[in-house]
Amino acid sequence: MEWLRDGERLDDLEIQGYKLIQNRDKFCFGIDAVLLSNFAVVGKGHRVVDLGTGTGVIPILLAAKTEALKIVGVEIQDDMVDMARRSVALNSLEDRIDIVQGDIAGRVQELKGNSWDIVISNPPYKKFGSGIVNTDSSKAIARHEIMCTLEDVLATSAGLLKHRGRFFMIHRPDRFMDIVVGMRAVGLEPKRVRMVHPYMGKAPNLVLIEGVLGGGAHLTWMPPLFVYDSGGNYTREIDNIYGRKLEEDDLDG
Amino acid sequence: MEWLRDGERLDDLEIQGYKLIQNRDKFCFGIDAVLLSNFAVVGKGHRVVDLGTGTGVIPILLAAKTEALKIVGVEIQDDMVDMARRSVALNSLEDRIDIVQGDIAGRVQELKGNSWDIVISNPPYKKFGSGIVNTDSSKAIARHEIMCTLEDVLATSAGLLKHRGRFFMIHRPDRFMDIVVGMRAVGLEPKRVRMVHPYMGKAPNLVLIEGVLGGGAHLTWMPPLFVYDSGGNYTREIDNIYGRKLEEDDLDG
Repeated sequence: MEWLRDGERLDDLEIQGYKLIQNRDKFCFGIDAVLLSNFAVVGKGHRVVDLGTGTGVIPILLAAKTEALKIVGVEIQDDMVDMARRSVALNSLEDRIDIVQGDIAGRVQELKGNSWDIVISNPPYKKFGSGIVNTDSSKAIARHEIMCTLEDVLATSAGLLKHRGRFFMIHRPDRFMDIVVGMRAVGLEPKRVRMVHPYMGKAPNLVLIEGVLGGGAHLTWMPPLFVYDSGGNYTREIDNIYGRKLEEDDLDG
Repeated sequence: MEWLRDGERLDDLEIQGYKLIQNRDKFCFGIDAVLLSNFAVVGKGHRVVDLGTGTGVIPILLAAKTEALKIVGVEIQDDMVDMARRSVALNSLEDRIDIVQGDIAGRVQELKGNSWDIVISNPPYKKFGSGIVNTDSSKAIARHEIMCTLEDVLATSAGLLKHRGRFFMIHRPDRFMDIVVGMRAVGLEPKRVRMVHPYMGKAPNLVLIEGVLGGGAHLTWMPPLFVYDSGGNYTREIDNIYGRKLEEDDLDG
């Protein structure tokens, strides 16, 4: 089998030897997916859904880092589904990872409701119509709420999770009100927050949030996560999360 | 006139020569009041209400730092009202500051509704029944939601403010969901947040939040505020906020 198509490359995830097929002209994963995979608490035997899986990077990282029994990546775009499925096969992870083509804005008919331990999502951050929309549809769909909104992601997550199931998401702090009010509205009580700051003295530009379906009201704040030190190098914590030094251009996307 | 009663002391606020009467056996102001006074944006000619003013420290700091026309401190406890009024007189601030004895859990009948530019509050942080309640009633009332709840503070604030009036509060991050959902419920849209961390690598233990009555949904996050450096000394920013080096025991309360 020929693994790569035109314009594609094979990136080493540098964990358990896993590789990922990406296309530089389409959406490639960024630090968000790595931080989210690290933030998520996935137990032994857990059944996990990743909503908007893209190239499947989060399911593959979770397969490497956790003892999850099954991880299902849901993705709407043909080309992304195709790349993700080939990456799963390339890593011989077909027994643990399924890539399902489905619509997060709907009920994801392919998956049984009220039955999953964990839902994780790195959804589009930007409201449709805000800012300049990238003309490449793959990148635009990954970044803007074109195919699904935050409210869709939250409603679908709440519908998939079993009672006391856990939800993990990364998003933008300026959407924080929509995130937490939206979570509470569908029964996903926010329980844990970690702000991600590019530098120590800077405002956060990403937020990691955990919710529990049917959980009680008490929000725990974690220490801030700083990405770069004052010299412009990764902080020790980021190095530890990656388990290595990434190249600068791996942070694009 | 004899300014001090038994057990009271006169503290120098070290700004414009202002002094504050406090009683060490009752509730004394802490860093919270100083941070909140610094966080609040009060313009020239503004009319301001401080809900739960205690010894009146916030009105006096705001009189020193801003060009507010009038600042009204509302307090329910007799002994606090008495100390606050004497501090106002001692500093010859009677023309700018009124101390009103009133109940935040009610409508604060003494004050006209829908007419204030700014409402500020450093309310009790702890739910009544949570933790060990200090047996001294002055401290307990300042720290626990005995005389008023967070919801009371928010409802009263929204009732006092004029349209587009601004609300500034300091509280605990573990109450964040109650704070932001409660604010939105009364029309005080959260607009700006600053987390206060005791040390750089620690979770936040205080949150400064600004809301606007009738404002649109967009939350701005400020850089984190660190109180101590790794050597246990105040950070430069805290020194700047105080405008001096405080003694350690001024941080109690």
